[in-house]
Amino acid sequence: MNYPTTIKHLIECFKKLPGIGEKTAERLALSTLNLDAEIIHLFSESLENTKTKIRRCEVCNNLSEEDVCSICKDSTRERDIVCVVEDPKNVALFEKLGSYHGLYHVLDGLISPLDGINPEDIKIETLIDRIEKDNIKEVIIAVKPSIEGETTSLYILKLLEKKEVVVSKIAHGVPLGADMDYIDTLTLEMALEDRKKISNKEENNS
Amino acid sequence: MNYPTTIKHLIECFKKLPGIGEKTAERLALSTLNLDAEIIHLFSESLENTKTKIRRCEVCNNLSEEDVCSICKDSTRERDIVCVVEDPKNVALFEKLGSYHGLYHVLDGLISPLDGINPEDIKIETLIDRIEKDNIKEVIIAVKPSIEGETTSLYILKLLEKKEVVVSKIAHGVPLGADMDYIDTLTLEMALEDRKKISNKEENNS
Repeated sequence: MNYPTTIKHLIECFKKLPGIGEKTAERLALSTLNLDAEIIHLFSESLENTKTKIRRCEVCNNLSEEDVCSICKDSTRERDIVCVVEDPKNVALFEKLGSYHGLYHVLDGLISPLDGINPEDIKIETLIDRIEKDNIKEVIIAVKPSIEGETTSLYILKLLEKKEVVVSKIAHGVPLGADMDYIDTLTLEMALEDRKKISNKEENNS
Repeated sequence: MNYPTTIKHLIECFKKLPGIGEKTAERLALSTLNLDAEIIHLFSESLENTKTKIRRCEVCNNLSEEDVCSICKDSTRERDIVCVVEDPKNVALFEKLGSYHGLYHVLDGLISPLDGINPEDIKIETLIDRIEKDNIKEVIIAVKPSIEGETTSLYILKLLEKKEVVVSKIAHGVPLGADMDYIDTLTLEMALEDRKKISNKEENNS
């Protein structure tokens, strides 16, 4: 390739991003030449800021530019309910809903012994510490339904067993609008297990 | 969205790139948090360099960090043949081939009156100037086979009509490995028109 060094470097950098291959990196690098000087400056500065300004909230471990993040600081939120998520992206997801007004706790990963991720490698300890200190009444576990998610969920449940706190888990099942023909068996099994009674009749057995 | 300002800015910047929507921009912005400080610094610096270091080669209009690009400076190349392309990306494409050793000329667009792009808006004049000054013997037009490409091609041909220079055009036709069922009619028409005689017999008519 005969591109000038700057372009070669940009291609290298874009290639470090997930899902960006050689061709896309080349396209993106060349397209930056058409951006306004203002945007280029903001882009460049923001990249540097990821290393200098971005840190984790001392309370919930979410991304923040201050010691405590804006959600943890917000006194209008329900301060006795914590939603436990895998990563900061999930916080953004719940915030987009607009219907959840509690706090969060970002684990930064899920327990996965096969990948060498043990309970002490993710932010479980700080979660447990918060429960009593901040007088939390409910912990909602909102991690993905996978072996790692289930392991993490069970581990947290066990640690909180003797504490005065309700532990709940978001529902897993058939998503809205899904075609039943294409639902995988694991999801269907979960949906069946977590079934909800919708009739008024009393059950005879069980 | 409750992301810190830095992340919000990064999402905005990534969204300015072609083919990057809201979701991808979010994913890419968050993924920069996992990059090494070294890469982040190179990325940030290279972005700034696109405005400060990158300019156009005075001779061929290709991207360069110096007044004259590395290809135009290279004395080992065939200096009497010029390949005319639409943009710098096409130069990289031909360079990857490794079989072309002449020079280039980057037009920076194609004539397209409907889009308000007239001959004087692209680098045709500098191409014509080069022909005599640099004693060019062949001009290969290597633009895409579209209405704009054909218009540009014909325009250059007309301007060079009275000059001592051979003008050629890269072949357009059915690409290797293509399924004939899926070739569009325009390509097929071009392929038919540009057919090559492969037998030794003399043609009777024409």
